[in-house]
Amino acid sequence: MALIVQKFGGTSVGSIERIEQVAEKVKKHREAGDDLVVVLSAMSGETNRLIDLAKQITDQPVPRELDVIVSTGEQVTIALLTMALIKRGVPAVSYTGNQVRILTDSSHNKARILQIDDQKIRADLKEGRVVVVAGFQGVDEHGSITTLGRGGSDTTGVALAAALKADECQIYTDVDGVYTTDPRVVPQARRLEKITFEEMLEMASLGSKVLQIRSVEFAGKYNVPLRVLHSFKEGPGTLITIDEEESMEQPIISGIAFNRDEAKLTIRGVPDTPGVAFKILGPISASNIEVDMIVQNVAHDNTTDFTFTVHRNEYESAKNVLENTAREIGAREVIGDTKIAKVSIVGVGMRSHAGVASRMFEALAKESINIQMISTSEIKVSVVIEEKYLELAVRALHTAFELDAPVRQGE
Amino acid sequence: MALIVQKFGGTSVGSIERIEQVAEKVKKHREAGDDLVVVLSAMSGETNRLIDLAKQITDQPVPRELDVIVSTGEQVTIALLTMALIKRGVPAVSYTGNQVRILTDSSHNKARILQIDDQKIRADLKEGRVVVVAGFQGVDEHGSITTLGRGGSDTTGVALAAALKADECQIYTDVDGVYTTDPRVVPQARRLEKITFEEMLEMASLGSKVLQIRSVEFAGKYNVPLRVLHSFKEGPGTLITIDEEESMEQPIISGIAFNRDEAKLTIRGVPDTPGVAFKILGPISASNIEVDMIVQNVAHDNTTDFTFTVHRNEYESAKNVLENTAREIGAREVIGDTKIAKVSIVGVGMRSHAGVASRMFEALAKESINIQMISTSEIKVSVVIEEKYLELAVRALHTAFELDAPVRQGE
Repeated sequence: MALIVQKFGGTSVGSIERIEQVAEKVKKHREAGDDLVVVLSAMSGETNRLIDLAKQITDQPVPRELDVIVSTGEQVTIALLTMALIKRGVPAVSYTGNQVRILTDSSHNKARILQIDDQKIRADLKEGRVVVVAGFQGVDEHGSITTLGRGGSDTTGVALAAALKADECQIYTDVDGVYTTDPRVVPQARRLEKITFEEMLEMASLGSKVLQIRSVEFAGKYNVPLRVLHSFKEGPGTLITIDEEESMEQPIISGIAFNRDEAKLTIRGVPDTPGVAFKILGPISASNIEVDMIVQNVAHDNTTDFTFTVHRNEYESAKNVLENTAREIGAREVIGDTKIAKVSIVGVGMRSHAGVASRMFEALAKESINIQMISTSEIKVSVVIEEKYLELAVRALHTAFELDAPVRQGE
Repeated sequence: MALIVQKFGGTSVGSIERIEQVAEKVKKHREAGDDLVVVLSAMSGETNRLIDLAKQITDQPVPRELDVIVSTGEQVTIALLTMALIKRGVPAVSYTGNQVRILTDSSHNKARILQIDDQKIRADLKEGRVVVVAGFQGVDEHGSITTLGRGGSDTTGVALAAALKADECQIYTDVDGVYTTDPRVVPQARRLEKITFEEMLEMASLGSKVLQIRSVEFAGKYNVPLRVLHSFKEGPGTLITIDEEESMEQPIISGIAFNRDEAKLTIRGVPDTPGVAFKILGPISASNIEVDMIVQNVAHDNTTDFTFTVHRNEYESAKNVLENTAREIGAREVIGDTKIAKVSIVGVGMRSHAGVASRMFEALAKESINIQMISTSEIKVSVVIEEKYLELAVRALHTAFELDAPVRQGE
């Protein structure tokens, strides 16, 4: 008999019918003998409706009071699901974040979980009840209601699983798992049986938005096995876990991530003196613009070129800042490009395999795709290419790294 | 500087515009120097919407879970009003029933308040904050959310006023006070400046539905001065308080109450033996039918007639029960009438005035209105008459007891 935490998101509980479906699913699992803690989001659209109400009063709602309003969304769904379970003869009880209690800091609207009291939950599980907990919310030391920010229900699920030392935290969503890449780009993309926390973090931050990054970090830190599953389809989903088996059988890379939200800026003919990188990026960061990739090549003729990427929405403001900097430090010119895309191969397997990067570059060269920037980490290689080649590049890499195969080793 | 508890009902906070109006009103009072605790209901219609959601899951929602859902209604309004106050530069903070904390028993959906912790509220008042509290809800000893049942927000207001020893509990509503009778029947009906708790109880239970009976009882028990005021019109309203001045100046009666929801049943020719009243009313009460007036006259020829009134909705079932009883105890017949009305004069002044009842009967006789039943208590006299004479009777009594006068003594 295992202890499982199951988290259902807003679309999974978006109507009475769907809540009934979730109740059926939970009932089935309960009857199979597992102890269950179910974490719920608000009905889809409800959180926005509540925020809109507050916005009608003021553009800048007091964060403490906004949390009081917004937290009612999950409070409704937990009671509805509990009723639906009891109707089916499944003993169940609901708890708000305050009732559990999920203690957070006092950063309203984006609070962090500090501690979870597992006593009530354990007592209910012992009595055979399914425990239904409101996601996304907690309470601070003063008794004020807090919320964890968007997507915080995933974090609640993982934190509860960690506190209860659950065997698995299952995140039910509208996809049936994590794929080798976006199936809309590569029809042969396959669901992964398993992926490591590190890989998942690289995949998520690079655009395969299945899970909240924060919840994956949390799961990794406390080693909570995480499983992504479809809310209403059967299937094993994808298990996200620690990297236990660094063996030769392991595939070299797990997936291809990509992102077309970025733009590239280059400052050319920068005098090659110490501290120049700070002089360039300092003003950008002071303007609250986030930088992703940064590339500086070796200097020649005592000048160097410095290139970085920012979100496309911030391209114009970043360009203005950079042009000021260019005048101050006597750089030759600033050039930029918004028609770029980033493609990354991700996999812990590349740690033990030489030549992964060159195999990537070879595959792109074969398709005559020019590489504009390269950046590497221990488990990923990212390149920036012209945007129009994005799909071609992803497909070429998917094939080159043998991800198309219908069944892969270990499955 | 006084400490005032102000309660606003569902229609007073029924839209964002109205919440803004309430905020203006509270701001004005705060600026006048009073310490304020504001108790709110849910936006009108919201509680029903939430109950409907639960009813879509099951006809018989688990009471504990229904309270979890329903309590979100006030949770939204308290935060909205608090935001609206802070926007106006009025420091304020919201509390749910759990946060205050308002400890109740565990009778979900109809809980009773056991105790209120006033520490947080006192600390906030000291800091100059307006404290906005969710009406209608509390928390039981296990930390489960409870609700007090319909109209419970009035009770919350009175209970808070009692716990804080407030100078006054103001109930804002859609009428500007308690009237000598229904102005739709008697255009000369006047707003009362003052009325005693006992009179208010008689008036309320007899059909002048301004306040929850329970909250008036509560206010009387703890001697909390209660004031009924209009939410959006200026005016002193009506003060409900203890009977301090039993003087000759006091008007004899305060108001005329009436009720056309009742029906009358008579069992005739009942053998006049001890215990017959129980034999007749026992089966009625066993059928969960509430009885209001009961009249039994002296017997003659060893038989008696026994008459009582019930709600019109229960007339048919009461008649069936009574006919069974008649057969069992050998009574002659059962007759009934649904076309009746009850008219009552209410006033603590009648304690010290003889002849009040006869003045009432005289006024009715002058209009040739036949009295079918009479029932008296220390501060009221009720009669049952034919329904079609109701308005005429109320107007005649209103004039006979000098309630029409534009200004009354003491005002």
